[in-house]
Amino acid sequence: MLRLHTGRGTIGLACELALAEAGADYEAHRLNFAENEQRGAAYLAVNPKSRVPALETERGVITEAPAILGYIARTFPQARLMPEGDAFAMAQAESLMSYLCSWVHPAAAHRYRGYRWADDPAAIADMRRKAPEVFGEAMRLIDERLFAAPWALGEAFSVCDPYLYVITSWLPRDGLDMAAFPRLADHFARMGERPATRAVLVAVEAG
Amino acid sequence: MLRLHTGRGTIGLACELALAEAGADYEAHRLNFAENEQRGAAYLAVNPKSRVPALETERGVITEAPAILGYIARTFPQARLMPEGDAFAMAQAESLMSYLCSWVHPAAAHRYRGYRWADDPAAIADMRRKAPEVFGEAMRLIDERLFAAPWALGEAFSVCDPYLYVITSWLPRDGLDMAAFPRLADHFARMGERPATRAVLVAVEAG
Repeated sequence: MLRLHTGRGTIGLACELALAEAGADYEAHRLNFAENEQRGAAYLAVNPKSRVPALETERGVITEAPAILGYIARTFPQARLMPEGDAFAMAQAESLMSYLCSWVHPAAAHRYRGYRWADDPAAIADMRRKAPEVFGEAMRLIDERLFAAPWALGEAFSVCDPYLYVITSWLPRDGLDMAAFPRLADHFARMGERPATRAVLVAVEAG
Repeated sequence: MLRLHTGRGTIGLACELALAEAGADYEAHRLNFAENEQRGAAYLAVNPKSRVPALETERGVITEAPAILGYIARTFPQARLMPEGDAFAMAQAESLMSYLCSWVHPAAAHRYRGYRWADDPAAIADMRRKAPEVFGEAMRLIDERLFAAPWALGEAFSVCDPYLYVITSWLPRDGLDMAAFPRLADHFARMGERPATRAVLVAVEAG
């Protein structure tokens, strides 16, 4: 059985939502960050990067959200979670996921994890202050230019949708008004109504 | 014809190397960063993110290195630049590319582009100081754990190889001794001997 290593408040939620959308039989291991479980020997044997998510498969572990999402789409083709067979459409999907993982997610992370890139407390505080501005600017570009309604890629739902949904959920946490991103707010509301989303959120809440 | 928008010293080089490895007929547009061409209206119409690389195709523009590399592999299948048909191997390829774009490349970028995430000059200086340590730690993990010799994914050459090659080339620029990363140094040397690499480096030098 697939085993997803994830943690509350992380992008692991996007992978869990994709597993649920695919109808996959999976088990979730929810790491205890308060006890630094991600830095313990048991978890480092799963993922030496000490990060979540990680997906254990019968052939080995997969790390990095875009790779896990791509794997889910490929191994559950009947769920049609990626535009396989259309090279340009696949590139648009991978472009959005790359933008989220390489720019948008790190932009938000500078609010909480500035210690990754600086040591001086004043530097970390300056990153914390600026992060919502950088994150908001990237989300505005997605809202205005990169988002193809009704779903992230257009008519077809894809693994990009849970990915975008989770990152959109971070807007209010960072003091950004979701109403300023009308297409993302609408997408967020529609994602929240999906049976897979409701089921996963209940499971996460139950721990 | 494919048109690659790229710039000296950027990850655009990885995409140009992949195009050459694929035997693609392409044209390179080398942006003039000294004159801020990436912020000009003409380029913003190509890529509103104001970044390189971007690949113009007959169906539209593709941005983000992993998406461009995936597109090249899919549209030139005879070059066998991705392990298509093997979901786990594809996930390993996408995992490495995601790690490079989401963590390794930004880690290095904090040395030169700290202004993206902070405003205070002292904060930017602290990031600049710390960046080679963070970048080096990530490259050590690749060297010791994530790299499957002789090529990034093992026996088969892939688009991951030019991607890794370009990022490895940044080690000495950031004061890191390539000899401390023996498997990456060996990979870098073998990449440099490939006809595609030699041809592209000559074209880049010629501007």
